[in-house]
Amino acid sequence: MAKLWGGRFEAGLDKKTEAFGASITFDQKMARQDLKGSLAHVTMLASTGILTDQEAEEIKAGIRKVEAKYEAGQIEFKIENEDIHMNMETYLHTEIGSVAGKLHTARSRNDQVSTDMHLWIKDTLVETQDKLQNLREVLVALASDHVETIMPGYTHLQHAQPISFGHHIMAYYSMLTRDAERFAFNMKHADISPLGAAALAGTTFPIDRKETAALMGFSDLYVNSIDAVSDRDFILEFLSNASILMMHLSRFCEEIILWCSHEYQFVTLSDAFSTGSSIMPQKKNPDMAELIRGKSGRVYGNLFGLLTVMKSLPLAYNKDLQEDKEGMFDTAETILTSLDVMSGMLATMTVNTSVMAESTEKDFSNATELADYLAAKGLPFRKAHEIVGEMVLECSKAGHYLQDVPLTRYQEVSELIEADIYDTLNSRTAVARRTSFGGTGFDQVKMQIDLAKETLKNESSVSSN
Amino acid sequence: MAKLWGGRFEAGLDKKTEAFGASITFDQKMARQDLKGSLAHVTMLASTGILTDQEAEEIKAGIRKVEAKYEAGQIEFKIENEDIHMNMETYLHTEIGSVAGKLHTARSRNDQVSTDMHLWIKDTLVETQDKLQNLREVLVALASDHVETIMPGYTHLQHAQPISFGHHIMAYYSMLTRDAERFAFNMKHADISPLGAAALAGTTFPIDRKETAALMGFSDLYVNSIDAVSDRDFILEFLSNASILMMHLSRFCEEIILWCSHEYQFVTLSDAFSTGSSIMPQKKNPDMAELIRGKSGRVYGNLFGLLTVMKSLPLAYNKDLQEDKEGMFDTAETILTSLDVMSGMLATMTVNTSVMAESTEKDFSNATELADYLAAKGLPFRKAHEIVGEMVLECSKAGHYLQDVPLTRYQEVSELIEADIYDTLNSRTAVARRTSFGGTGFDQVKMQIDLAKETLKNESSVSSN
Amino acid sequence: MAKLWGGRFEAGLDKKTEAFGASITFDQKMARQDLKGSLAHVTMLASTGILTDQEAEEIKAGIRKVEAKYEAGQIEFKIENEDIHMNMETYLHTEIGSVAGKLHTARSRNDQVSTDMHLWIKDTLVETQDKLQNLREVLVALASDHVETIMPGYTHLQHAQPISFGHHIMAYYSMLTRDAERFAFNMKHADISPLGAAALAGTTFPIDRKETAALMGFSDLYVNSIDAVSDRDFILEFLSNASILMMHLSRFCEEIILWCSHEYQFVTLSDAFSTGSSIMPQKKNPDMAELIRGKSGRVYGNLFGLLTVMKSLPLAYNKDLQEDKEGMFDTAETILTSLDVMSGMLATMTVNTSVMAESTEKDFSNATELADYLAAKGLPFRKAHEIVGEMVLECSKAGHYLQDVPLTRYQEVSELIEADIYDTLNSRTAVARRTSFGGTGFDQVKMQIDLAKETLKNESSVSSN
Amino acid sequence: MAKLWGGRFEAGLDKKTEAFGASITFDQKMARQDLKGSLAHVTMLASTGILTDQEAEEIKAGIRKVEAKYEAGQIEFKIENEDIHMNMETYLHTEIGSVAGKLHTARSRNDQVSTDMHLWIKDTLVETQDKLQNLREVLVALASDHVETIMPGYTHLQHAQPISFGHHIMAYYSMLTRDAERFAFNMKHADISPLGAAALAGTTFPIDRKETAALMGFSDLYVNSIDAVSDRDFILEFLSNASILMMHLSRFCEEIILWCSHEYQFVTLSDAFSTGSSIMPQKKNPDMAELIRGKSGRVYGNLFGLLTVMKSLPLAYNKDLQEDKEGMFDTAETILTSLDVMSGMLATMTVNTSVMAESTEKDFSNATELADYLAAKGLPFRKAHEIVGEMVLECSKAGHYLQDVPLTRYQEVSELIEADIYDTLNSRTAVARRTSFGGTGFDQVKMQIDLAKETLKNESSVSSN
Repeated sequence: MAKLWGGRFEAGLDKKTEAFGASITFDQKMARQDLKGSLAHVTMLASTGILTDQEAEEIKAGIRKVEAKYEAGQIEFKIENEDIHMNMETYLHTEIGSVAGKLHTARSRNDQVSTDMHLWIKDTLVETQDKLQNLREVLVALASDHVETIMPGYTHLQHAQPISFGHHIMAYYSMLTRDAERFAFNMKHADISPLGAAALAGTTFPIDRKETAALMGFSDLYVNSIDAVSDRDFILEFLSNASILMMHLSRFCEEIILWCSHEYQFVTLSDAFSTGSSIMPQKKNPDMAELIRGKSGRVYGNLFGLLTVMKSLPLAYNKDLQEDKEGMFDTAETILTSLDVMSGMLATMTVNTSVMAESTEKDFSNATELADYLAAKGLPFRKAHEIVGEMVLECSKAGHYLQDVPLTRYQEVSELIEADIYDTLNSRTAVARRTSFGGTGFDQVKMQIDLAKETLKNESSVSSN
Repeated sequence: MAKLWGGRFEAGLDKKTEAFGASITFDQKMARQDLKGSLAHVTMLASTGILTDQEAEEIKAGIRKVEAKYEAGQIEFKIENEDIHMNMETYLHTEIGSVAGKLHTARSRNDQVSTDMHLWIKDTLVETQDKLQNLREVLVALASDHVETIMPGYTHLQHAQPISFGHHIMAYYSMLTRDAERFAFNMKHADISPLGAAALAGTTFPIDRKETAALMGFSDLYVNSIDAVSDRDFILEFLSNASILMMHLSRFCEEIILWCSHEYQFVTLSDAFSTGSSIMPQKKNPDMAELIRGKSGRVYGNLFGLLTVMKSLPLAYNKDLQEDKEGMFDTAETILTSLDVMSGMLATMTVNTSVMAESTEKDFSNATELADYLAAKGLPFRKAHEIVGEMVLECSKAGHYLQDVPLTRYQEVSELIEADIYDTLNSRTAVARRTSFGGTGFDQVKMQIDLAKETLKNESSVSSN
Repeated sequence: MAKLWGGRFEAGLDKKTEAFGASITFDQKMARQDLKGSLAHVTMLASTGILTDQEAEEIKAGIRKVEAKYEAGQIEFKIENEDIHMNMETYLHTEIGSVAGKLHTARSRNDQVSTDMHLWIKDTLVETQDKLQNLREVLVALASDHVETIMPGYTHLQHAQPISFGHHIMAYYSMLTRDAERFAFNMKHADISPLGAAALAGTTFPIDRKETAALMGFSDLYVNSIDAVSDRDFILEFLSNASILMMHLSRFCEEIILWCSHEYQFVTLSDAFSTGSSIMPQKKNPDMAELIRGKSGRVYGNLFGLLTVMKSLPLAYNKDLQEDKEGMFDTAETILTSLDVMSGMLATMTVNTSVMAESTEKDFSNATELADYLAAKGLPFRKAHEIVGEMVLECSKAGHYLQDVPLTRYQEVSELIEADIYDTLNSRTAVARRTSFGGTGFDQVKMQIDLAKETLKNESSVSSN
Repeated sequence: MAKLWGGRFEAGLDKKTEAFGASITFDQKMARQDLKGSLAHVTMLASTGILTDQEAEEIKAGIRKVEAKYEAGQIEFKIENEDIHMNMETYLHTEIGSVAGKLHTARSRNDQVSTDMHLWIKDTLVETQDKLQNLREVLVALASDHVETIMPGYTHLQHAQPISFGHHIMAYYSMLTRDAERFAFNMKHADISPLGAAALAGTTFPIDRKETAALMGFSDLYVNSIDAVSDRDFILEFLSNASILMMHLSRFCEEIILWCSHEYQFVTLSDAFSTGSSIMPQKKNPDMAELIRGKSGRVYGNLFGLLTVMKSLPLAYNKDLQEDKEGMFDTAETILTSLDVMSGMLATMTVNTSVMAESTEKDFSNATELADYLAAKGLPFRKAHEIVGEMVLECSKAGHYLQDVPLTRYQEVSELIEADIYDTLNSRTAVARRTSFGGTGFDQVKMQIDLAKETLKNESSVSSN
């Protein structure tokens, strides 16, 4: 029957199947974590007497040599050694000979790969927090510079009410702070050592899982060995958190793209974060913002990929789980770089404050102010709203705005309106007066900034300890 | 041009568009939350002097009447009133007349709908925890009954090593405990009051957001009004957590379906959780397990739906956000019912302990034991492994198992093997001896159960306070 | 152990489980299809002699009575009858007594539900094509009115080159025509009769599957009975096609929302397709466009839901498949209504042609024209491009545009530039001259419109036959 | 403000941003397609007189040199040249100097990249069909060998009715044939040339798009230039089709994994498609089947990634579209290799026919036969069904099966039952008698196989033309 699927297959069969099953092309990213885990494991094997001290010392010395070669870029990974574990162990054999075979005592690749991934995610979470914090600091600095910069606030992409640009920026700070909190929570389920779960059932050797956990810097241990080798929640949490983060960035990038447009001209990106066109010399494209916006798709896809892999998978380890890694690596790379590029783009962006401000002076976004003015003078709000509606219509027809209506006309409409109405209608005044907690009033924006600085300072002092 | 899209459209146009834009068909689920928010809001309007005490009392009395009618099923929701907010306000008008119009002072539907959703999710999270706890208790009870029930442990759906059925069940307990921790963290971002953010910018009225938050039972306030009306992270967290939960349940259901099959016969479901066939009288289908497994798709889809909605949405409120509700409601309904059905199905399931145990007696899942035995007597593990491999091959050809090999033959293979090998090869002994922390050894399973009982007890005492 | 999951469950157990497993709350949408299938089935049972003619006549009369009651709204569906099939059969029993029991001969609910779904999707595909055609006609009419309306063409949301608004609209026509082709292909895999596959293996009764297929209007038969009951490809195709359609609509809606904004003001939506704000009287929100854009999420989610359900499901029927319906119904409802609303919104939209045109007069989107002009006169393109780049920079600094540069200055730059340059730089000329096949030149736009009209005419004549 | 995002960023800024924006690391896969498109373009530029024949010949010679270097592995791609187009053009410059600059006349990277992708997908579709056909041939051969191999047919993973293993295999053939039809339809929307659409609006140069289309082997042209550069439907179709294909494979792999299990033992995989365990010598894992099953997640994720990217993207080209490639490449690689591995795995699989057959002899999957037997003798089906139900119950209690009931007992139950009942209850007879069209009866299975062979033969003769 071989003829059926024919010559083109048979010849390369073993190689092709081998390559299909191998993970070394991507799991080599966990080389450092794999070595770290092996060091901890062999140390424990000696302290529990499973190996002699001498055996352990030989193995440890060997691991350190392999590590040095890896850092020096002298390790060549091979498909035939399948994965990072076997590649590393093979190098260890080359270094120290047959005693290398004792390293794998009381361990299985099932708990080993899970250990590597926990360590890798932990490192990535730390890096993510670092870059998130950096971006949040950029936002706070940007907001600080623009507490009193007036811009139109939008709902339905229509001018709604004038707001502080600093306030708008601080909305993104709030989102990113929740992202940071989610990644912090993610650490809880990443920071658990699976080492010692062996294939799935634990081992009969007198291992000390607490010792290896401590040596690797884990705060906690899986209490169920089957769970230890089949749990991928910590990766799903990472992918979910990354998806929400990318969603936030996609919203921000959408706005930056709008702000850069001919129609808005609210901001100008630095040349370092824009590109031109080979045909159209006038073009200056917000490429980086578009790319980050687009990369939300990739990260969502990675999340769904793993959710699909895990769906209805029986316990404990199945080879399907090998599909947990590439999406994780790609997601990490994507969010870390996106955060960096976002920070750079925002830190070098020019804000065209006068364009923004003027944009609030030729619209009806102060209509709410007039209604509030009347309501504050005792007119029922519904009546006030009705009067303003009529005035807006009248202005539209006349081709001018509320601030252009003469006082005489206002006073025909309502005796309550006095000369101070023009200050009320001023967009700066409108912003300044929104002093409800968390509102766009300047003091409230400053309050948010102060709070944010405090938060960031506390985070830094925690992470530097 | 009207003729183009023609008669069939024009006639029903307004109605159709109106219905397309309306949300009352689904957001009526938040009726109680909407009334609760209104009560808090009007109370604050009085305490800050924005309304008089008398006005506030009239409105509160009106709200309570509407509430009573709602609870009595006397409220008829109308498409033309668009959403739950307008439907409720219309009823309020009917009850108390024009003073009802003052309720909406210093509030917008943008912060109102967000408030309703936060309250709704908070209620749902409490209910979810309750049902999760119940299921976890069912699992602990089931595991307690089966600490010493032996079953084959699987990797790659192949018999790997014998394990305790109680241990296997406790793996699911561990997963569900992480689910509970995720839903608990979810509360952090749900328990924040957006009320007072108004349309997007806060308000010029001297409102007291802390008072309304306290009255509604919120622990925290949004510090940025734009964020308050455009944030849906708390729903995305809920959908992510629900997806991971359903993934866990889909794994469990997959196993239950396997266990119920003719080939396994490990368990028998209660008739109350199975169905028959109208043609094939012999059938007893694990319908509920299949349905829960299938419902993972629906929940994943809801998560993906909202991530898509949010992608690249500019600030602040956009009508797209109306699409945040149906997936949330459907997800809540799905997980709450699935948890209930799961609890019922497991609590009434019969475990065919002898079938499970026998299944470990006619396989090679004790091969690791022989290798361990030799290694423990000093033979290098790799040599031990090699010997066992040969023995397995020899047995396969002879059509028997390791426990069937006579001692004389064993001693030809290795002098280290003595008569105690038969006890070692016994699957119960194999399970019992896996006493590494978190392993399947009976004491370790008991330890997990004790820990779980303690955890559940502490959770209960917290939630009953 | 019952105490564990306790009082709140036990009491309602049967009801809750029953409701969880029932599908009648949603599959009642297939009532007409179910009756149609039963009529065909019983007709065939008589013609093959499996039932007597008299039995068949009695059953057919009964089915027609049930049908009449259903159309008159007199059927009350019951949870305890589980699904549409059992509900209908129960009514049939009520009408005609025990002979009703012969209807199900040589049929199973597995092939019956699949038959219903094929029929339902076929009906929905016809309706979808109808509404798609209507929208495409609206687009062609709109484009016809605006062949010579000039607007800025965008790449990266930056002004790139001036284009015809009619051309832009025809891009959407092209997308929607591909959608129509996809739904037409979808029919191929929907138009296959599964009836007669029975539970999964066919039947020993001498049925005639070709007859039932013909009676129900199917063009083809499943040739494998197991495939017939477990195939859901035709639904996945529908969901994929709907997702791509919604993606197209989301792009269009995004643009409409931009065009309605204060910054663009390119179009004005009819009041019938916009909404106002209860606080901000100036607001006119493009709600319908936002909602359609948002509904892409729901449809994507439904696709993902079913892909997840089907993943790794063993043959043949599994209860998981019950989860195939709600997403299908919701998707159909969503796309049909979205297409209607889209047609209405576009047919009643005012295009602000002068705003669009002016927008191309205060930008550098004619830079390519100058480069082309020079290249056409023999200057190497790269040199031409360089010169234009310098001129754009010079203009930017001077605060004017290419069309404002005096001829004397142009001639200093290049002797090739003559007085006709000003016509070349004119945006209308720029558009008119792009006469490459499918380009934005007016004649090319007219060609597209003529082609589209021809296509639509042919489709109509096909569908009216 | 630079200090904020600090030292670690500034230093590498340009490089990092450049790398973030570059696509050469992945779009180099389209090198051949890019060169093919350039050759066609320059040929047309000469035939339309836009370039002189000599210029065109120089450029063509240069392209052929670059092509030769590429095929010889002598091209080194550079990040600073951003993408495949610029990398190739740079090499062309190196080969032939400044005349290389004329190649890009009347072309933009926007239509160029779209052309490359259409060509790439076309090539991939051909390869996909080839491998799909190969797998379908393997299935037909396997089914041919097992027309009369009896196995249990399952619904709800419960034994339902005995079926032919060949029939079961042919169900997968049917699925894969629909896959082939979908990929064939996919070609329709891939086989359209976008070249000549330029940036988005076409060009003023007198190009001949039909000529370039013909030279590249395209059957059709985009009729709208904006659509040409912004359409990605052909990729979404590919990803949707690939998702459905992987769903089918995941179902098949799930079954293979079950069949390989200790509990089923229906098949034995070749060693070349299985792996062992480093600790458990008895293990033979169906790794390849698990991996293919798992890879459904990756492909689903890629589909969702691109749907997300495209959601609400305004026309025409946006940088987000750069995110369309990696998922496409990964999906192609995944399905092509999965199809190969699947073919190899099935072609070398041993079917344990006696295990399968015996499995149908110790169950009640012949219950339907008894009911049919009675119905065929005139007993109303419902009465027959009731009697069989009672018999099954009676047997269950007695611990035997329907075929074990003595005739005397049967005749007490119904006079209609005669000695021929035992043949009827035989599972082979049961299979043979299901001769309804497409049923599992042996003749029907042979009919399917003949039909399939005819189809495959016709496909081959088409593709070899």
